[in-house]
Amino acid sequence: MNNFRYNVVTDVRFGKRSILQLKEVVELYGGKNILIVYGGGSIKKNGIYDDVVSVLKDCNVCELSGIEPNPDISKVREGAKICKEKNIDCIVAVGGGSVIDTAKCIGAGAYYDSDPWDLVEDGSKIGKVLPIIAVLTISATGSEMNKNAVISDKTRNIKLGTSSLDFIPKAAICDPEYLYSLPSIQTAAGTADIMSHIFEQYFRKDTGATVSDHIAEALLKTCIEYCKVAIDEPKNYEARANLMWASSLALNSLISCGKEGAWSCHPIEHEMSAYYDITHGIGLAIITPRWMRYILNDSNVSKFAQYGRNVWDIRESDDKKCAESAIDKTENFFKECGIPMTMKEVNIDSSKYEIMAEAAVRNNSLDKAFVPLNKEDIVNIFRMCE
Amino acid sequence: MNNFRYNVVTDVRFGKRSILQLKEVVELYGGKNILIVYGGGSIKKNGIYDDVVSVLKDCNVCELSGIEPNPDISKVREGAKICKEKNIDCIVAVGGGSVIDTAKCIGAGAYYDSDPWDLVEDGSKIGKVLPIIAVLTISATGSEMNKNAVISDKTRNIKLGTSSLDFIPKAAICDPEYLYSLPSIQTAAGTADIMSHIFEQYFRKDTGATVSDHIAEALLKTCIEYCKVAIDEPKNYEARANLMWASSLALNSLISCGKEGAWSCHPIEHEMSAYYDITHGIGLAIITPRWMRYILNDSNVSKFAQYGRNVWDIRESDDKKCAESAIDKTENFFKECGIPMTMKEVNIDSSKYEIMAEAAVRNNSLDKAFVPLNKEDIVNIFRMCE
Repeated sequence: MNNFRYNVVTDVRFGKRSILQLKEVVELYGGKNILIVYGGGSIKKNGIYDDVVSVLKDCNVCELSGIEPNPDISKVREGAKICKEKNIDCIVAVGGGSVIDTAKCIGAGAYYDSDPWDLVEDGSKIGKVLPIIAVLTISATGSEMNKNAVISDKTRNIKLGTSSLDFIPKAAICDPEYLYSLPSIQTAAGTADIMSHIFEQYFRKDTGATVSDHIAEALLKTCIEYCKVAIDEPKNYEARANLMWASSLALNSLISCGKEGAWSCHPIEHEMSAYYDITHGIGLAIITPRWMRYILNDSNVSKFAQYGRNVWDIRESDDKKCAESAIDKTENFFKECGIPMTMKEVNIDSSKYEIMAEAAVRNNSLDKAFVPLNKEDIVNIFRMCE
Repeated sequence: MNNFRYNVVTDVRFGKRSILQLKEVVELYGGKNILIVYGGGSIKKNGIYDDVVSVLKDCNVCELSGIEPNPDISKVREGAKICKEKNIDCIVAVGGGSVIDTAKCIGAGAYYDSDPWDLVEDGSKIGKVLPIIAVLTISATGSEMNKNAVISDKTRNIKLGTSSLDFIPKAAICDPEYLYSLPSIQTAAGTADIMSHIFEQYFRKDTGATVSDHIAEALLKTCIEYCKVAIDEPKNYEARANLMWASSLALNSLISCGKEGAWSCHPIEHEMSAYYDITHGIGLAIITPRWMRYILNDSNVSKFAQYGRNVWDIRESDDKKCAESAIDKTENFFKECGIPMTMKEVNIDSSKYEIMAEAAVRNNSLDKAFVPLNKEDIVNIFRMCE
């Protein structure tokens, strides 16, 4: 097991009507002049916006809305400007990963004198960060409990990740009932994103970090047990709650403790959504099983067999058969959740395969992935998705 | 799933030679005048004491040694006095649960004007607490990452738990190599303690907190996979590291998220070790499988069967048979780890069964346990341990 540091300070307030703790939380973490950051109109329709504004009625509140999926640097610039002008001391991010990631970069941009894009390109330039409080409205990215942010520059088809320990939200309000109004496809895509986060950390070089891998298996089982329940019964509290908490734990560094190596599917999908603006989780569901099938070989077959046995409960003593069956089950699971599983279904043709593959290799460390991938490998994986 | 708050701030520095980060950590968490708290002579023999003193050579250091298993309030009083007299601003606890628990109460006692025993009897009296930094030398209690402390008053055979969010250590130095010199029986007893912590949280009223239960299963599997390896090969890094990290995660509130109810075996064992001063983990190993067998009934058999299938990989479709087999395997596992598994072997006769059972019921909430237990139940469980 490699040496590691684990330091997740987020004060999670989880459960029904946890929004009522927002005021206490904002005060605990030093906020009076608040910037509320959110996306489109959905939180106005489902009542979450009213909840937040009502709880914070005694604070000085500014707003920045219109954060879109695959959030753009332009909104970070806008938010950082507001923070400087209005002397903001705390950012409340009401949304999912896109909103929280934007809030993190705004929080750093507030203390940065030049263009915040610098902070996306080079995380080492991130200095002080305003405290971030997340109010979660979709569970997928784990951004509410981690140090990462992914921001795009849509004018240039660039999507990059950056991070800082000070990006970790000081607190997170997680109410599973806030997920009741999510459309099925978002529940499915969100779960695919959670599962992909787990796969990215599970399928790594073996460093003997068994406990991390067993916890990863526990989280995967939870996703598989509850995703279809949440789709069939959107107001099933148990399903929403288990998915929501699994989502935070999947990417708060818990299951990468003691492990090493780079991610595989996220870098590839980032280029798909940079060029086509498809839903991140859908892109991941399309790529993941094909990537598994492409990289499966004699030296990693035992890890895929472990996945099959411990997650899918496959009773097959032959490692190869067990691994293949686990990959098939993974693909079928995404299909059964209603996710479009081919490039054709999401209107991606082969015209940009080469450009996307090249960008994926250029912008990431795919040579350090579980099985190293070059441009040709990625094009081959794209073709398997047709 | 019940509402919960999860807020574990400990900055864990895990791995080989992580002691070299102690100075940085002490400074990060505001320490110059340090009180080092430790137990007997073992850290002087195995070099850990020298490591600590050498890393902290530029600080003002005081020492309090001689903390014993089932630590006594007298040492808390002594430590609190030193903190007040020497203007201590940070406590470095070098040891296992006994030492860290003592340090926590000293940290609270430093700010308390009356007898620190008040803080053990009534946690609500705990106010400010000096920052605690743990340097772990045995993995078992999880005290390095949680808010709990258990202190005895040996003059009165009382052993009580107390807690405060401010008891959570600000940082923990966890070097698995520090466990290399542990005797087999301590490795075994420590693992029994870890497993008991997990059982106490796993066997609870069903609130739908599936993800917590799956993580509990992951931690149990890790204990079972590595305990005998660590006993057979005391310097097997992978075994020591996995047990060490599983131990912290087993009792940092992660696997009780969303659950409710009181503990069962710990309250019973606390009375055994209050009256007989036996090793806590050994007492737990003796009690646990008998408690399981005693409480197994139609309404909880499915949970025990789940334990059997997900932890022990028992392929038995009949719940009752699966549950019984899982309990047998639990008992055999402790036996195979070399733990004395009867009252006779640890020199406990029946003379104090009634007194201990009465105290267990009086000092705890056994009426709120997974299966509520009264005095008679506990005497019956004691008899099953003969």
